[in-house]
Amino acid sequence: MNIKKYLPILEWLPSYRLAIFNQDLMAAMIVTVMLVPQSLAYAMLAGLPPEVGLYASIAPLLIYAVLGTSSALSVGPVAVIALMTAATAGMIVSPDGDAYLTTVILLTFMSGVMLTLMGLFRLGFLANFLSHPVISGFITASAIIIAVGQFKHLLGVSVSGHNLPDLLLALVKALPDLNLMTLLMGSGTLLFLYASRRWLGPFLTQLGFSQVIANSVGRLSPILAVVVTTAIAAYFTLNEQGVAVVGSVPAGLPPLAMPSTDVGLWQQLWVGALLISIVGFVESVSVGQTLAAKRRERIDPDQELIGLGCANLGAAVSTGMPVTGGFSRSVVNFDAGARTPAAGAFTALGILVVILWFTPLLQTLPIATLAATIIIAVLSLIDIHAIKHTWRYSKADFSAMLLTVVITLLQGVEAGILSGVGLSLALHIYRTSRPHTAVVGRVAGSEHFRNIERHTVETSPNVLIIRVDESLYFANARYLEDQIQALVSQSPELQHLVISCQAVNLIDASALDSLESINARLKDTGIKLHLAEVKGPVMDRLEWVEFPEQLSGEIFISTFAAWQRLKRGDKD
Amino acid sequence: MNIKKYLPILEWLPSYRLAIFNQDLMAAMIVTVMLVPQSLAYAMLAGLPPEVGLYASIAPLLIYAVLGTSSALSVGPVAVIALMTAATAGMIVSPDGDAYLTTVILLTFMSGVMLTLMGLFRLGFLANFLSHPVISGFITASAIIIAVGQFKHLLGVSVSGHNLPDLLLALVKALPDLNLMTLLMGSGTLLFLYASRRWLGPFLTQLGFSQVIANSVGRLSPILAVVVTTAIAAYFTLNEQGVAVVGSVPAGLPPLAMPSTDVGLWQQLWVGALLISIVGFVESVSVGQTLAAKRRERIDPDQELIGLGCANLGAAVSTGMPVTGGFSRSVVNFDAGARTPAAGAFTALGILVVILWFTPLLQTLPIATLAATIIIAVLSLIDIHAIKHTWRYSKADFSAMLLTVVITLLQGVEAGILSGVGLSLALHIYRTSRPHTAVVGRVAGSEHFRNIERHTVETSPNVLIIRVDESLYFANARYLEDQIQALVSQSPELQHLVISCQAVNLIDASALDSLESINARLKDTGIKLHLAEVKGPVMDRLEWVEFPEQLSGEIFISTFAAWQRLKRGDKD
Repeated sequence: MNIKKYLPILEWLPSYRLAIFNQDLMAAMIVTVMLVPQSLAYAMLAGLPPEVGLYASIAPLLIYAVLGTSSALSVGPVAVIALMTAATAGMIVSPDGDAYLTTVILLTFMSGVMLTLMGLFRLGFLANFLSHPVISGFITASAIIIAVGQFKHLLGVSVSGHNLPDLLLALVKALPDLNLMTLLMGSGTLLFLYASRRWLGPFLTQLGFSQVIANSVGRLSPILAVVVTTAIAAYFTLNEQGVAVVGSVPAGLPPLAMPSTDVGLWQQLWVGALLISIVGFVESVSVGQTLAAKRRERIDPDQELIGLGCANLGAAVSTGMPVTGGFSRSVVNFDAGARTPAAGAFTALGILVVILWFTPLLQTLPIATLAATIIIAVLSLIDIHAIKHTWRYSKADFSAMLLTVVITLLQGVEAGILSGVGLSLALHIYRTSRPHTAVVGRVAGSEHFRNIERHTVETSPNVLIIRVDESLYFANARYLEDQIQALVSQSPELQHLVISCQAVNLIDASALDSLESINARLKDTGIKLHLAEVKGPVMDRLEWVEFPEQLSGEIFISTFAAWQRLKRGDKD
Repeated sequence: MNIKKYLPILEWLPSYRLAIFNQDLMAAMIVTVMLVPQSLAYAMLAGLPPEVGLYASIAPLLIYAVLGTSSALSVGPVAVIALMTAATAGMIVSPDGDAYLTTVILLTFMSGVMLTLMGLFRLGFLANFLSHPVISGFITASAIIIAVGQFKHLLGVSVSGHNLPDLLLALVKALPDLNLMTLLMGSGTLLFLYASRRWLGPFLTQLGFSQVIANSVGRLSPILAVVVTTAIAAYFTLNEQGVAVVGSVPAGLPPLAMPSTDVGLWQQLWVGALLISIVGFVESVSVGQTLAAKRRERIDPDQELIGLGCANLGAAVSTGMPVTGGFSRSVVNFDAGARTPAAGAFTALGILVVILWFTPLLQTLPIATLAATIIIAVLSLIDIHAIKHTWRYSKADFSAMLLTVVITLLQGVEAGILSGVGLSLALHIYRTSRPHTAVVGRVAGSEHFRNIERHTVETSPNVLIIRVDESLYFANARYLEDQIQALVSQSPELQHLVISCQAVNLIDASALDSLESINARLKDTGIKLHLAEVKGPVMDRLEWVEFPEQLSGEIFISTFAAWQRLKRGDKD
């Protein structure tokens, strides 16, 4: 066992130098400033007290710095996972009581266990069940639900619901209760954030500032909005006029927590925990890979599972919420010059400083401001381009995406993602259930065999050669049976059927059964079945079950050898 | 639209002759005699009054004769489907009340609708989700549950349960209540049936009788058992000594039934109905194909769905239970000389005669006799050979089979089949998630490119050529990204990466995203991505989304063309 594989910190720590330290520290300071309002906002989105978001931004970052393989990934609360947390926990307990936090902590713990186990047992391939159209549809729909869900904070009303129709209905019903001052504050912030994201960057570039500076100012506008609205709310004591504010955030180290051992709760949460784990992993790995590639580095997906898993275990025992690598923060971290995972550890220390000494400053931060930052952040996740692109590229993939969007909006996140996965699998089974096959004949004077429908080739009425261009497995085994039966019923003179297997990488047990049935049925009608060009590993398995002895015909090294031996004129 | 395709009767009826009629009639008489006790037994297995089994053997057979494509398939109640019916309906209502029959009729109706729709929309590929190991495991486990479940009738006690532990426990608890006369009758029949199946055939063959006669006598032994035990029970009025008998079966035509329109019931039954439909279809089609092949005929799977679907609709409206093509009866029908689906229609008339005039004869038929025939029939479904065979051939397929057996025994039929399907899909995703890829180099002096690890080939430090031996889709897209990232991080001088696509039959939207990411990441590090030997249909799609324009490199007609153009020495 290579200990460096499981402790990537040993790779980079021994060669850590002052120059790198300076770069990491600079990046960490910028990310800390960005992470404070994000942590509060995503805790709110998950239906949790604000400090839980901060707690989730300390231990997980320290742990990921030891175990993670990406140098620039910024781990912590993210929007989509916060939404999934709210949906999963909210289905079981009401967000108002103490039981809610207990449930979220268990969810975080279970997700940590699942990710770690997936890493140790190299089960990262489970993430492959999520096709890109499903992820993209899911994220788009989640972003819509999140954005619509935040409007209550802009209006200063209280509504709840995990799907779009419920939310919209509740919002409309609650309209008469809106708080004008909150609406003013919230919509002002929203407009400012939208304008600065849309126009400030380009404007600064036009003024002659560099692209990097223009982007950075754009990214700092949420911070500016937080500072200004907090100051306004404090100066005019807006909370006395019904504007909801964060209120007192308890100072001090994160309290330790023990995950619940209630078996019933585990059973209710496991599907949600699994989906949170997989979605979080997919998001994190794709950010990590994109950033790593820019420096010709690489990340190790299995070790990333362990890193994220332990980070979530850390979040669970320090009263946090589920975490993963976030897109926008990681990009800022990278652009700001983070060179090693130490930057993440320094960010954790920055958050620790905030929670120990600066929580009073957060007291008058208006909830509406946080809601506006969430809305702007998630709207950028709605990728209209990807939707159009998929529509043009493949109607099948588009239908999986559309189903995921519709079910997520109408039925919630779990149902949405599960239906999308189901449809993707069904489409894949459908696509491979009719593999391309061709009846081939010999190109005169050569050893080549080509499709008889496209080329002028030699054939013989007593020999039929079929080339199958796909591995044979349960999804297409029956089709092969149907097809051979159809061909044979049209060929009265047939004596030999040859299946040419150069493209068959695998024959599973179902396909083996089909070959045995085909062999037996052909034998009943006096036709011999032969195979040609069987690959080594496939041949080995066939020999384990003595298939060659059962076969009415022979297994030939090449299609040409089969042709020479079997075509009419030779003895049989 | 070809009307003959949807009404296969038009194919054979115009040329129907007396000689064929005689053969069909002979077969029908033999099958009728066999079907009477089977119908009663499988109705009992499904928890229904005995006459329901007879009702299900009239209308469905007439309908299948018009719509079916197999000349020898014998449609009617079968053991596994009867068990699944009992399990699905029994989870919702108790088998004692009237609501149970209503539920079964709705289940039959829903299964009929599903099968018909699957046929009309050509969704027969859905049956491909059931891999052979899952089917085989499921049938083995069902046979065990059925056999154990019938022991109560041999003992003359009353117990219930849909999984093995419950059944065994209930049986043991009920042991003190056993009825000695029933036990004597039941175990005697069981021994007789076992002995005649095991030894009678071989014995007759040894005596010089032909194989066909020996087999036929073996198959008639259940009839003999029914006749003899019914006579004994009648003569000694055993029902007065506590031996359960069929009792009075109402004579007369099947009463019409209307399927329930209770939406809640539809929602509870749809998963069960779908599984019954698919399992029934798979069983029926594999029997049909085997028999058709013996005469170089073929069956049309989509039309079979329609035929079976309408047969079930017929069963539903005539107070029946779910039906499909049964294995043993179809083989008898075939061996007895059935030449067209008319044999099935004549069988239906035979059953009609029985139910109109001969039901009094069934009155003293002991339930224990039916139980013994069921036990012997289902034990032959336990295919130890298939289990061993799968173990030797593939541990992965074996694990899917084992999981299906264990979950079916412990949790019941629905859970068993669904877990098996889930595991098969997961294994398939796993197998294809790491497609075979090879870095290839040029065989000196030729245009061939081979794996650099197996052959001595020319390479160039600035060009890397990767051959991918699988279609690219969501399950393996991410792996390709990982792999290319690993290769690139090891090749400092690299300028060009070529993916050779001769084995890539499909690139889905997820894989396209991956190619776009790979392209963008390589561009960031100054490496150009090229493709070679892209197939026509794949190329068309790539052009729809302007992928070739985005690509940093080119798309070459052949790997050799890419090599010539890119290898060091040429201008770039």
